[in-house]
Amino acid sequence: MVLTNHKFLLAARPVGMPKRSDWTYAEEPLAEPKEGELLVQVLYISLDPAMRGWMNDARSYTPPVGIGELMRALGVGVVTASRNPRFAVGDQVSGVFGVQEYAVTDGRGVTKIDARIVPLPKYLSVLGMPGMTAYFGLLDTGQPKPGEMVVVSAAAGAVGALVGQIAKIKNCHVVGIAGGAEKCRYIVQELGFDAAIDYKSTSEDVKQSLRKHCPEGIDVYFDNVGGAILDAALANLARGARIVICGAISQYNNIGPVTGPSNYMSLLVNRATMKGMMVFDYADRYPQAGAEMGGWMAAGKLKSREDIVEGLATFPETLLKLFKSENSGKLILKVG
Amino acid sequence: MVLTNHKFLLAARPVGMPKRSDWTYAEEPLAEPKEGELLVQVLYISLDPAMRGWMNDARSYTPPVGIGELMRALGVGVVTASRNPRFAVGDQVSGVFGVQEYAVTDGRGVTKIDARIVPLPKYLSVLGMPGMTAYFGLLDTGQPKPGEMVVVSAAAGAVGALVGQIAKIKNCHVVGIAGGAEKCRYIVQELGFDAAIDYKSTSEDVKQSLRKHCPEGIDVYFDNVGGAILDAALANLARGARIVICGAISQYNNIGPVTGPSNYMSLLVNRATMKGMMVFDYADRYPQAGAEMGGWMAAGKLKSREDIVEGLATFPETLLKLFKSENSGKLILKVG
Repeated sequence: MVLTNHKFLLAARPVGMPKRSDWTYAEEPLAEPKEGELLVQVLYISLDPAMRGWMNDARSYTPPVGIGELMRALGVGVVTASRNPRFAVGDQVSGVFGVQEYAVTDGRGVTKIDARIVPLPKYLSVLGMPGMTAYFGLLDTGQPKPGEMVVVSAAAGAVGALVGQIAKIKNCHVVGIAGGAEKCRYIVQELGFDAAIDYKSTSEDVKQSLRKHCPEGIDVYFDNVGGAILDAALANLARGARIVICGAISQYNNIGPVTGPSNYMSLLVNRATMKGMMVFDYADRYPQAGAEMGGWMAAGKLKSREDIVEGLATFPETLLKLFKSENSGKLILKVG
Repeated sequence: MVLTNHKFLLAARPVGMPKRSDWTYAEEPLAEPKEGELLVQVLYISLDPAMRGWMNDARSYTPPVGIGELMRALGVGVVTASRNPRFAVGDQVSGVFGVQEYAVTDGRGVTKIDARIVPLPKYLSVLGMPGMTAYFGLLDTGQPKPGEMVVVSAAAGAVGALVGQIAKIKNCHVVGIAGGAEKCRYIVQELGFDAAIDYKSTSEDVKQSLRKHCPEGIDVYFDNVGGAILDAALANLARGARIVICGAISQYNNIGPVTGPSNYMSLLVNRATMKGMMVFDYADRYPQAGAEMGGWMAAGKLKSREDIVEGLATFPETLLKLFKSENSGKLILKVG
C-alpha cells in the first residue's frame, strides 16, 4: 500500500485577501525518510497572521515562500518513522512542518513535546510562538512596571490574550481592545482584564474610550493591529510610554500602501518609544519562558483558548478567519 | 522721552503656512521693571520650526500661544535696567523673551552669556536649543557607536549640521539629506560629512540613494522632517537601528492630517526603535554639553553658520524661510 501526502503549495502571490486560486492542493506519494531524517505525521497546524507576510515577494525577516513551494507553517505531530537517532517512532514533536499531512525533516528545529503535560494544541499557543511573543514582547520590549497602564489590541487573539494576563500577573492595569461584545466579555470576565473596548461597536470611539479608561495615559501599548487603533493609542500616551510593535493585521491585506501612524509625533511630545520585536531573537530563552508560563497555567493564572478547525482541505478559507477577526483564540487547523 | 516697544502678537490660528494676517504688529510704551524684574533689550531672536507648533491650539509639551498673546521665542540681549540683584545693566543674557524689542522678566529661565567667548548669535545655535537638541538627541537617544552609519535629515539646518559633525567626532560614517546642491556641498566640503543626498534633485531618489550610501543599512537616523524622507530611511534600516524623532518640518503646515510613516513595520523586521526626544528634559546637563561643544568649536571640529535677517518687522516673512527650506544654517532675526 502506497501512502499519500496532501499539501498546500503557494500558486500565486495574493492581491489583498488570499483566494483559493492562490493555492494548489497537491497529492503525492509519501516520501521515505533517508538516513538522518524522520517522518512526522502532522496533527495540528498553526495558522498565524505572519503567514500573510510570508506570501509576499518582499524583503523581510525571513525569505518569502516561493511560487510552487509548500506553504510554511508551524505544527505539532507524531514521529511515524525515524532514521535519526534523536527521534523515535511515537515521539511527539513541534517544528516548521508546513501545511501538509506528513513532513520529512532532518530534525533541525524540531523539538520534542509531551501531551501528558499540556495538550498538544497548547504547544502552538501558550507554549508556542504566540506565548513566546507575548512573554518577551511585553516583558522585554514593553518593560511594564507594577501599577502601570497596559493596553493591548487584538486582545482576544492568541497573543493579545496572553499579553493582558501576563500584565495582570505583573500587577498592571490592563485594557484590551477587541472586536465584538463576546470577545470583550471573555477578556474581562474570564481572563481578568480590567476593561475592554469594543472597536466594532458603533457607540464606542476607541480614542475617546482610551481617554476614559486611561486618564493618566498609556504606559505600555502592545500593538497587533496597526491602522486607526495604533493612532488612537498614540493619541493617549503617558510620558515615557513604550509601544511594542508586534503586528499590523489591519494592514496585511492592503492593496495600497500601509497606513502609517499619523499621530507618531506623539512619540516626541511624550518622550515615548516605539520598538519592533521579533520572537525568534529570544529562542535561547524559550525554555525559561515556557517554564514560567507553565507554572502560571498550572496555577490557573494563564488561560488560553484554541479555535480548532478540522480538515486540511479547509486551509484557504480557515486562514481567512484571522483577517476577518472571526477566530476566538489561537487559530489551529486539525489535520485529522 | 517715552521709549516704545514693538512686538508681534498672534492674531489668528494659521491654516497651513502662517500669513501676515495671522499676526498683529503692536506698539506700546516701554514698561518699567518692578522690584525683582529686569528690562532686556532683545538683540537677536531665534526662529525655530517648533514655533509653528506653538501656534496651534493642540495639547503638546508646552501650552499654545494664545490669540492676542506675544509670540513666544528664544532670544539674546542686553540688560538695560535691573531691579533684580542677579542681573546688572550691561549683562548679556539669553531667555524666552518673545518676538519683541524689549522684554520685562523676573529673571526666571534667564541665563548670563558672554559675547567675548562666543559671538551672541551662537548662543542661539551651537550653545542654544539647536546645539543641545543635536547633542542629546544624537548621543543620548541615538546612542551611536564608532563605525556606525548615521543619517540625518535637514542636514544643513541648525540641528542637522551639528548632528552630523558630532557623529563625525564620534567616528561614525555620516550621510546628510539636504535640499539643493549648495547645501549638499556645504555639509560635505565644509562640515566633513561623508556624503550628501539632495532630496530636491530630480535625478536623485532618496530611498535608492540611501541604499547606495548605506549598503549595510542605517544604524542611527536622526529625523527632523518626517514624511517621505522618514519613509525612505525606514526602508533602509540596519538590524537594531535607532530612529531619533526630533521634528517633522515637512508636516507642520499640513492642512490635513500628518502623513504617518508607511514603512513603520520596518521597526519590527529590523528590531528597531523609534524614540521621541525633547531637549528641555536635559536642562540640568546643558552646562556639560555646552562645555564639550565649546571645546569642539575651539578645536575647529564643530562649525556653524547663522542666517541672520535684519528687522523685527520682517518676522512673518522671515519665519517662512524655515518652511520653504530657504535658510542656510540657523535662522535668526536681528532686531536692531
